Amino acid sequence: MKKLVSLGELLMRLSCEDALRFSQVNNFKVAYGGSEANVLITAANFGLETEFLSVLPENDLGKSALNDLRNSNVGLNHIKFQGERLGLYFLEPGAINRPGKIIYDRQNSAFSKIDPEWFDWEEIFKDCNWFHWSGITPAISEKAAQVCLHAVETAKSKGIKVSGDLNYRGNLWQYEGANPKEIMSQLVDKTDVLLAGSYACSQFFDIKNIQNNSELSKALIQKFPALQRIAITNREEINASHHKWSADLFTESTLLSSTEYNIYPIVDRVGTGDSFMGALIYGLQHFKDQKALDFATAASCLKHSIVGDFNRVSKEEVFELIEGDGSGRIKR
Amino acid sequence: MKKLVSLGELLMRLSCEDALRFSQVNNFKVAYGGSEANVLITAANFGLETEFLSVLPENDLGKSALNDLRNSNVGLNHIKFQGERLGLYFLEPGAINRPGKIIYDRQNSAFSKIDPEWFDWEEIFKDCNWFHWSGITPAISEKAAQVCLHAVETAKSKGIKVSGDLNYRGNLWQYEGANPKEIMSQLVDKTDVLLAGSYACSQFFDIKNIQNNSELSKALIQKFPALQRIAITNREEINASHHKWSADLFTESTLLSSTEYNIYPIVDRVGTGDSFMGALIYGLQHFKDQKALDFATAASCLKHSIVGDFNRVSKEEVFELIEGDGSGRIKR
Amino acid sequence: MKKLVSLGELLMRLSCEDALRFSQVNNFKVAYGGSEANVLITAANFGLETEFLSVLPENDLGKSALNDLRNSNVGLNHIKFQGERLGLYFLEPGAINRPGKIIYDRQNSAFSKIDPEWFDWEEIFKDCNWFHWSGITPAISEKAAQVCLHAVETAKSKGIKVSGDLNYRGNLWQYEGANPKEIMSQLVDKTDVLLAGSYACSQFFDIKNIQNNSELSKALIQKFPALQRIAITNREEINASHHKWSADLFTESTLLSSTEYNIYPIVDRVGTGDSFMGALIYGLQHFKDQKALDFATAASCLKHSIVGDFNRVSKEEVFELIEGDGSGRIKR
Amino acid sequence: MKKLVSLGELLMRLSCEDALRFSQVNNFKVAYGGSEANVLITAANFGLETEFLSVLPENDLGKSALNDLRNSNVGLNHIKFQGERLGLYFLEPGAINRPGKIIYDRQNSAFSKIDPEWFDWEEIFKDCNWFHWSGITPAISEKAAQVCLHAVETAKSKGIKVSGDLNYRGNLWQYEGANPKEIMSQLVDKTDVLLAGSYACSQFFDIKNIQNNSELSKALIQKFPALQRIAITNREEINASHHKWSADLFTESTLLSSTEYNIYPIVDRVGTGDSFMGALIYGLQHFKDQKALDFATAASCLKHSIVGDFNRVSKEEVFELIEGDGSGRIKR
Amino acid sequence: MKKLVSLGELLMRLSCEDALRFSQVNNFKVAYGGSEANVLITAANFGLETEFLSVLPENDLGKSALNDLRNSNVGLNHIKFQGERLGLYFLEPGAINRPGKIIYDRQNSAFSKIDPEWFDWEEIFKDCNWFHWSGITPAISEKAAQVCLHAVETAKSKGIKVSGDLNYRGNLWQYEGANPKEIMSQLVDKTDVLLAGSYACSQFFDIKNIQNNSELSKALIQKFPALQRIAITNREEINASHHKWSADLFTESTLLSSTEYNIYPIVDRVGTGDSFMGALIYGLQHFKDQKALDFATAASCLKHSIVGDFNRVSKEEVFELIEGDGSGRIKR
Amino acid sequence: MKKLVSLGELLMRLSCEDALRFSQVNNFKVAYGGSEANVLITAANFGLETEFLSVLPENDLGKSALNDLRNSNVGLNHIKFQGERLGLYFLEPGAINRPGKIIYDRQNSAFSKIDPEWFDWEEIFKDCNWFHWSGITPAISEKAAQVCLHAVETAKSKGIKVSGDLNYRGNLWQYEGANPKEIMSQLVDKTDVLLAGSYACSQFFDIKNIQNNSELSKALIQKFPALQRIAITNREEINASHHKWSADLFTESTLLSSTEYNIYPIVDRVGTGDSFMGALIYGLQHFKDQKALDFATAASCLKHSIVGDFNRVSKEEVFELIEGDGSGRIKR
Ligand SMILES: [Ca+2]
Ligand SMILES: [Ca+2]
Ligand SMILES: [Ca+2]
Ligand SMILES: [Ca+2]
Ligand SMILES: [Ca+2]
Ligand SMILES: [Ca+2]
Ligand SMILES: [Ca+2]
Ligand SMILES: [Ca+2]
Ligand SMILES: [Ca+2]
Ligand SMILES: [Ca+2]
Ligand SMILES: [Ca+2]
Ligand SMILES: [Ca+2]
Ligand code: NI
Ligand code: NI
Ligand code: NI
Ligand code: NI
Ligand code: NI
Ligand code: NI
Ligand code: NI
Ligand code: NI
Ligand code: NI
Ligand code: NI
Ligand code: NI
Ligand code: NI
Ligand code: NI
Ligand code: NI
Ligand code: NI
Ligand code: NI
Ligand code: NI
Ligand code: NI
Repeated sequence: MKKLVSLGELLMRLSCEDALRFSQVNNFKVAYGGSEANVLITAANFGLETEFLSVLPENDLGKSALNDLRNSNVGLNHIKFQGERLGLYFLEPGAINRPGKIIYDRQNSAFSKIDPEWFDWEEIFKDCNWFHWSGITPAISEKAAQVCLHAVETAKSKGIKVSGDLNYRGNLWQYEGANPKEIMSQLVDKTDVLLAGSYACSQFFDIKNIQNNSELSKALIQKFPALQRIAITNREEINASHHKWSADLFTESTLLSSTEYNIYPIVDRVGTGDSFMGALIYGLQHFKDQKALDFATAASCLKHSIVGDFNRVSKEEVFELIEGDGSGRIKR
Repeated sequence: MKKLVSLGELLMRLSCEDALRFSQVNNFKVAYGGSEANVLITAANFGLETEFLSVLPENDLGKSALNDLRNSNVGLNHIKFQGERLGLYFLEPGAINRPGKIIYDRQNSAFSKIDPEWFDWEEIFKDCNWFHWSGITPAISEKAAQVCLHAVETAKSKGIKVSGDLNYRGNLWQYEGANPKEIMSQLVDKTDVLLAGSYACSQFFDIKNIQNNSELSKALIQKFPALQRIAITNREEINASHHKWSADLFTESTLLSSTEYNIYPIVDRVGTGDSFMGALIYGLQHFKDQKALDFATAASCLKHSIVGDFNRVSKEEVFELIEGDGSGRIKR
Repeated sequence: MKKLVSLGELLMRLSCEDALRFSQVNNFKVAYGGSEANVLITAANFGLETEFLSVLPENDLGKSALNDLRNSNVGLNHIKFQGERLGLYFLEPGAINRPGKIIYDRQNSAFSKIDPEWFDWEEIFKDCNWFHWSGITPAISEKAAQVCLHAVETAKSKGIKVSGDLNYRGNLWQYEGANPKEIMSQLVDKTDVLLAGSYACSQFFDIKNIQNNSELSKALIQKFPALQRIAITNREEINASHHKWSADLFTESTLLSSTEYNIYPIVDRVGTGDSFMGALIYGLQHFKDQKALDFATAASCLKHSIVGDFNRVSKEEVFELIEGDGSGRIKR
Repeated sequence: MKKLVSLGELLMRLSCEDALRFSQVNNFKVAYGGSEANVLITAANFGLETEFLSVLPENDLGKSALNDLRNSNVGLNHIKFQGERLGLYFLEPGAINRPGKIIYDRQNSAFSKIDPEWFDWEEIFKDCNWFHWSGITPAISEKAAQVCLHAVETAKSKGIKVSGDLNYRGNLWQYEGANPKEIMSQLVDKTDVLLAGSYACSQFFDIKNIQNNSELSKALIQKFPALQRIAITNREEINASHHKWSADLFTESTLLSSTEYNIYPIVDRVGTGDSFMGALIYGLQHFKDQKALDFATAASCLKHSIVGDFNRVSKEEVFELIEGDGSGRIKR
Repeated sequence: MKKLVSLGELLMRLSCEDALRFSQVNNFKVAYGGSEANVLITAANFGLETEFLSVLPENDLGKSALNDLRNSNVGLNHIKFQGERLGLYFLEPGAINRPGKIIYDRQNSAFSKIDPEWFDWEEIFKDCNWFHWSGITPAISEKAAQVCLHAVETAKSKGIKVSGDLNYRGNLWQYEGANPKEIMSQLVDKTDVLLAGSYACSQFFDIKNIQNNSELSKALIQKFPALQRIAITNREEINASHHKWSADLFTESTLLSSTEYNIYPIVDRVGTGDSFMGALIYGLQHFKDQKALDFATAASCLKHSIVGDFNRVSKEEVFELIEGDGSGRIKR
Repeated sequence: MKKLVSLGELLMRLSCEDALRFSQVNNFKVAYGGSEANVLITAANFGLETEFLSVLPENDLGKSALNDLRNSNVGLNHIKFQGERLGLYFLEPGAINRPGKIIYDRQNSAFSKIDPEWFDWEEIFKDCNWFHWSGITPAISEKAAQVCLHAVETAKSKGIKVSGDLNYRGNLWQYEGANPKEIMSQLVDKTDVLLAGSYACSQFFDIKNIQNNSELSKALIQKFPALQRIAITNREEINASHHKWSADLFTESTLLSSTEYNIYPIVDRVGTGDSFMGALIYGLQHFKDQKALDFATAASCLKHSIVGDFNRVSKEEVFELIEGDGSGRIKR
C-alpha cells in the first residue's frame, strides 16, 4: 500500500482540567497535537499507511512526544531529533457562553529550525501516493516555509496527489520577511484537494464579498485552476458546548453537501477540522465524492466526543453514524 | 415486614474516567452492578426489606464486592463464598453521537458454578412476600438456569408474588445446551409482574410484527395468562447524552402511561431499567397502579443523574419529581 | 480611586466531585464563598478598589481562607482573627432533574461573634464611596445584625452610596430574639440600590400578590422611598443543568429589561446572584442604567461557566458577550 | 456469640492529599473515625460481634457516616438520628521533621446532646459480654459524661467485662463544670482492662515521677484495685515518618513485653492506639496474656500501613507478622 | 542487527492507588505486564531489536494492550488477535510490614488457547540471535507449554542462543495433565543462560538442601550440562518498602558477585527480576561477564523506582549508577 | 518596618505526579518558583516586609503566576507586565537511586528582556534595608545582568545591606558576550552576606583545591574583603529520598556550624537552598550569628517536607525544631 505523507510540527498541549480557568488550575492535562499529525492519525486509524515528517528536540520531552505518537500507528522513520525546545500550547476549554482560549508558546521550537537537507526526499516519496500540507507550517519560520514548498514541489513533480488545509492563524507569520500571500499562492497552485474557509481566503488571496460556499469555490478555482476538489466545513456555534456541523465538497462545478449534525454537549472541539481532512483523504481514495464527504463529516462529528487533538474512532464507527445511528445506544 | 428476595450475579464494573475511550484510560473507576442487585438496592432505598442471593469468589475482590453492597442496606445473610473469579464488565460511556461500549468478562465466574444445594430455600422464603428474577441469570450457565427456575417454582408454590425482567442479552446464553425459549417460557409462566420489551419478546417468544405496547402486552398475556401486570419502558435516544424516557403499565386490559421525561445531559444510564423495576415493585406494594407507574418512571428518570449502576435516590426525592418539580433548584 | 466596602462571613465550601452524591464521595473539593465576598471579588475583577470586613478564626483554616482571598485582589486590611471555627457549607451539585443540595454548618462561627468595637469605622469609610450589605449578615447572629446596621448607618451618615441584597435564607435567623422584619426594614430604609426578589419581599415586608417585577418595584419604593434603583433577576429552571437567565432594573419609574440568556450545560450556579450584584455596582459607576443592567446580566450569565462561588471573568469578556458573541468560539 | 459494645462519637475526617499543607489543598480526602468506632471495627475484622452506640445528625452527612460504618460489619441497630451537625476533624499529616496537625471542629455536635433516655440499655446489654469506653466521651459534654458513666455502671452491675482507654485530650473538657479527675476516677474504678499512658495518668490522677511502665501500673492498681490488666503502648518518634512501636501488659504483678517494631515510612498513624485496644480485647478473649499482647502489638503495627482511622487487617495477616514475617513479601 | 525474540502472555494490571487496600479502592490504575514482555522492553530500551510473540483477544482491551506496548519500541509484527479475554492481575502493593498481594484472573485467556500453527517460525527466527522463555508460559495451558517447547527446540536447532527464567508460580500449572518437572527439564535442557532461584529448583528439579548460590549453580549444571551461565538474584526484604538487592553470575565454575544495593522507599517492585534478565541479555551481548552482571543488577535496582511492570531507564542512567552515583542528585 | 527587596525571574514549574517519569505522565502539577521569589516568600512567612521586582508576560499565564505569588504576602507593586512568554521548567523528581531531572525552557522569556528603565529605583529603595540577588539573574541575558548590577550598585550606594547567592547553573550563561567571571566578581564585590559553594567558587573565581568550608571562606574573603558573612550548606545525598543536611556560617574569622539533620523520605528538595537564604536574612536581622545559622538550617530542613519550590513553615515551627522536637508528633 502506498503512503500518505505529511510534514508538520508536533506540539505538547497543556490543558485545564474540568471547566477550570487558567487562573484556577493546579494541574495541566498533557496531550499532543498539531494539524498535520492529527490528519495522519485520523487516516491511520482508518487503515492508511502514513509517514510523519517532523523535528523534535533532543530531550525527554521530545522523546515522550514521539512515544505518544507511536501508539497511533503512524510511520515515524523520518523524525529528526535536533534542537532545544518542544513547541507548546496551553488550552483553556470554553463552557456555555465563555469562549475557549489558546495560548501558543511555540516560537524558537526545534521544528522552526527545520532544514530541507535533514530529509531524504527520494526515499520519503518512493512509496507515497498522497502528500498533505497545512498553512500552519509556512507560518512558523522561513525555514519551515522553504521545506513545505520544497516538499509540495517535489511531490507534485513525482505525480503524487497533494492536499492542503489553509488553516489561517493570525498570530503566526511573525518571522522577518513573512509573506503569507506569496507562499500560500505558490502552495495552493500545486494542490489538488484543498480545505478552505472564507476568512482564510480573504486573508491569503483577497477573495472577498463572497455569499456562499459555491461562490467561494468558484473564486478559488478561477485563481488556482489546478484544484480538483475544494472542501469547506460549516460550523454554527450556538454556544461553546453546542455546535451544528456540516460540510460541502466542490467537485467539477458541483457543490455536494453533507448532513448537518447537532452536537452537544461538546467534549473537545480541537482538531475537528483536521479529523475532517484525514477522513476526506481516506474517503477520496476509497469512495465516490458524496460518500467521501459524508464519511469525513461523520468522522469529524465524532471527533467532538474525543478527548485530545487526535481522533480515535474506527471506520466501522463512522459507518454506523452515516447509516443513521446517531443514538449513542450502548454496544454490548 | 416481609422481604423482597432476588437471585443474581454481582459484577465488578470498571469504567473509563471522564469521556475517555478504552484506548486512552490510565485508570478505571470501580463500581459494582448486576440487574438483580440493582433492583434490590433501589427497593431497599425506599424502605423495603430485601435479601440478595448470590455467589462470590473466596478472595479479596469477592469480599470487597460484598462490603460495597453492605452499605446499601440489602440483606446479605445468604451470600455463598465459593469459587475463583468475580465476573467483570468494562464500560466506555458514550458521548454525543458516539455510543457507549460494554465488554463483558464474566465467563467461568464464581456465580456461574452456583448450585441449588447451597441455599436453604425454606429459610429464605420464610419471611418473603415477593421474589424477583431477571433473564440474565438463566443466560449465564446451566446451573444458574436451574437455580433460577428452582427459586421461581418454590416461590410460586408458597404463594409468593413473582416478578421478572426479560433482559435479553444476545452475547450471553453461550453454554452448551442453552435453550432460551424453553427456560424463559417456564419462568414467565410462573410470573405475576413482568418487565418486557419488544425485541426480547421477539427473541424469546417469537412475538413479532407488534405495533405498540398495547399489542405487545396482549400477545404476552395470551401466551402467559397468569401475568397480572406488564410494564414496558420507552427510551428515545436523541444522542448518547440526551434521551426521552417514559413507561407504560398494562393491567387488566388497560394500558396506563406515564409522563415523558426529557433527560440531558445524562450522567450514567446503566441500571436505569433495573431502577424502574425496583421502584415498580415498591410502588405496586404501596400505591394504586397509575401512581406505581409514575413512581417507577420518576425514580428511573432520576437514576440517569446518578454515577454507578445503583440508584441512590430517596422516596421523597421521587415524590418531588412526580409533583412536578423537575427544576433541579438547589435545596438549602 | 474610592473603595467599595462590604461586610460579611467567608465560608469554606466543600463540594462533591463530578456528579457524585454526598453518600458517594471520597473527596470534597475545597473552595471559599460568601455573598458579600463574591460581590467584592466580582467588582475587583473589573477594576474597583475594594475592602472586605470579616472575622476569621485564629487557626490554619482561617489563614488558608484569607490566603485564598488574597489572590482575588480584594483589600484585606481589616480582617479580624478571633474565635474558633470557620463557617462551612457542603454542596452536592444537582444534575438533570435532581436538585442540588446545600448543608450549612456555620453556627457558632468566628464571624457570628463579631463586635462593632473590632473595626475602626472612621478609617474604613475614609476612602469609601459605596457600601454593600446582604440579608445574610443580619440573619447570622444578633451581634452580626448590630454590626451590619451600624455599618449601614455610618456609611449613610457620611454620604456613601449604600446597596443591599435581600438574600432571604429561611434556615438562618435562628438566634434568640431574631426579628427579620424589623432589622431588614431598618437596613433597606437607608439603602440606595437594592437587589430584590418576590419571595424575599413577601417574607420580610409582607409584600404579596405581586404580578410582575414592575409591581414589585413600585411596592418597594412605596415602602422605602429612598430607594433609587431596584434590580430583580429572573431565573427559569428547565432542569438543574439548563436555565434561562435575565434581569430587570427599575429606575425612576421605568423598568429596564436585559436580554435573556439560554444557559446549558451549567458548570456552577452558586454565586450567580452575587456576581450580578458586583457587576451592577461596577456598572452603575461607569455606565448608563441600561448598559449597567446589560453588563450585570452578561457577567452573571458567564458566572454559570465558572467553578466555585467567585466570578473570574474580565470586563473585556463581559463586553464581548454583550456585543453578541455568545458563540464560545476559541480565542487564539 | 456475645457482643462487644461501645459508645462514642463518630467524626468526619477531612485530610490533606499527599504531603500538602492546609494552606495548599484544593481537596480534602473524606474518611470517618472516632476512638470507640475504631476499636469496634478492629475487633469486628477479627470476628467479634459488636454493637456501636452513637448519635448522628439527621442529614445527608449523618447518613453517609452511617453508610460508611455499615461496610465495616459493626452492629448499628442502636444509632440515634437526632440533632444538627456531624463532628469534624481536619488532618494535615506530618512529613519528615514536620509534625502532623489536627484541627477539631466538634463542638455542639449531634453527639454532644446525647441523652441516656435515648437508649434501651436492657436490650443493649442483653447479649453483651464486654463494654468498652474511652476518655474522649466524658470530655465532650456533661451529657456525654453522664451517658458514659451510666453505661459503665450498668455493664458492671450485670457482670459484663469493662475496658477503657484514658485517651487524654487537653483541648476537650471545655464544657461548664467539667471535672476530669472526678469522672475519670469513677470510670476507671469500674474498669477491668485499661489502656493507660503516663501523661494521661499525671493529668487525671496526679500519678507523677514515674520511672517506667511497671511503676505506672503499680501506681494505678494501688489507686484502682479492681483493675485486672493494664496495657501501655510505647512509641518512639524518630521523625513523623519513622516510629518504633511496642507495648507492655501488666497482669497480676507481672509486666509482659512485646517485640519492638521498626515502622517506616508511615502511611497513617491515626487510630493506631485504638487498633491496639480492639485487638487486645479480641486477644484477651481468645489467647493467653502474652499472645494477646503480641497480637495487639502486631495488629497496631500493621495499622500504620492503612489509610484512614480504621484498621483493615485480618487475623491471618496479624498472625503472619507475629510469626516473624515482617518482610512484606508479595502474596500471590 | 539480529533480534531478541520472546513468547509470552501480556496481562492487564489493575493496581490500587496510593497505599489503599483492595477493600478501599474506588479506582484501579491500569498498566500492562508479563514477564517476557518486561524482558523485551528492558532490552529494547537499551537498544536491542526485539520481537514479541503473543495472543491478544479481538476486542478493545486487546487493542489497547497492543497500543501500550507500541510505545515501548518492541517489535509487534507477529501478535495474533484471536479469542475472547485478556488475562488480568490485580495488585495491592504492600507497605511497611504489610505484604503486597496479587490476585490473578488469567484462566481461559486468549493466550491460553495459543497454537503453534498461528506463527511462521521460519520468518520469526530468520533475523533472530537470541530466544528467551520463562516458566510462566508452560504453566498456563497445555497448548502454551507445547508452543514454548516448540519455540525453544526450533531456536536451538538453528543455533540461536536460548535463555530462560524459571519463574516458579505455585498457583499456575492448573491445567489437566500439567507436569512441571518434565516440561521444565526439557526446556532447561536446551537453555544456555538461566535465571534460577533455590525455591524454584527445589520445586521443579528436586534440588534441595542447598547452602548457597555456588552449590545451587553446580547442582544445576550437573543436571543440565549445556548451561553456560546461571544467574541468581538475592533479595533481602527488610520490610515491604525496604529491600537489599544483589545478584550472582555463575560462569565456567566461577561465581561472580555484584554490589549490594540498599533500596528504600520502594516505588514498585513488580518486574524487577525481569528487568534484571533483560539487562543481562543485553549485557552478555556487549560486555564481559562481570560488567554484564553489574549492568543487570544496577538496571534492576533502578526498576524499583519505576511505576509499572516495565523498566524505563536508559543505558546511560544504568552506567551512572554502576559508576557509583547513587546519590539521586538532580540533573539539570 | 523596612523591606527586603529582590529581583528575579518567576518560572512556572510543571512536575510529574507521584513517581512517574516524563515518558509516563498524563498530567503535570503546576507550581511557581524562582530562586529570588523563594527567598522572599520564606522571609515574608517569618514576618519581613518584602518587595519582588520582576517581569511577567501580558497573558493569562503571567497573570496566573502573579495571582499565585499574591497569596504569599510578598509585595508586588513593581511587577512589570511586558513581553510574550513565561519561563518554564519541567521537573521529574527522583526516587531511590534514580536522580531527579530538570528541563529548563526559559529562553526568550519576558524577564530576559528586562530593562533598568522599567523600574523606579528611588521609590523602590526608599523603604528598603536589604537587597538580595542570585547568580541566576546575570546568567539569563545581558539585560538581566545589567539590571542586577545596577540594583546592587544602587543599593550599596544607599547603604543598604546586600546579600547574594552564587547559584551556579552551567546550562545558563548562554547569551552572546556572557562573562560570568567578570559580572559575578563585580556583584560579590558589593555584597555583605554571601551563600557560596565550592563548585560555584571554582567556576566563577578559580578558587580551587579547597579542603573545607573554612578554607573556602578565607579564600573568598581574601578576594572580596567587603564580605561580612559567608554561609555554606552541606548536603550528603545518600539517595534521592534520603539526605543529610547542615550548614556553616563564617563570621569574623570564625566558622560556626549547625546541627546535622537526617532527612527522609524527602517530599520535595527543590528550593531548599533558597529557603536557607531567606531564613538566614531573617535570622541575621533578629538573632545572634549562631542562632541565625540554626534558624536557617532548621527552616531549610523543614522545606524538604513541603510540596513546591516555596517554603511554607512558620517561625514557631522552626523554633520547635531548633528546640529539639524533630519527632513529628501530631499537634492537636
Ligand atoms: Ca483539580
Ligand atoms: Ca477525572
Ligand atoms: Ca497515571
Ligand atoms: Ca472520581
Ligand atoms: Ca474529577
Ligand atoms: Ca481516594
Ligand atoms: Ca493524590
Ligand atoms: Ca495533588
Ligand atoms: Ca481544584
Ligand atoms: Ca497518588
Ligand atoms: Ca496523583
Ligand atoms: Ca485523565
Ligand atoms: Ni476530570
Ligand atoms: Ni487553586
Ligand atoms: Ni472526573
Ligand atoms: Ni493516556
Ligand atoms: Ni498511556
Ligand atoms: Ni472532575
Ligand atoms: Ni466511592
Ligand atoms: Ni468509600
Ligand atoms: Ni488555590
Ligand atoms: Ni493550590
Ligand atoms: Ni495517583
Ligand atoms: Ni492520591
Ligand atoms: Ni471508598
Ligand atoms: Ni466507595
Ligand atoms: Ni499524588
Ligand atoms: Ni500513560
Ligand atoms: Ni498516554
Ligand atoms: Ni493555588
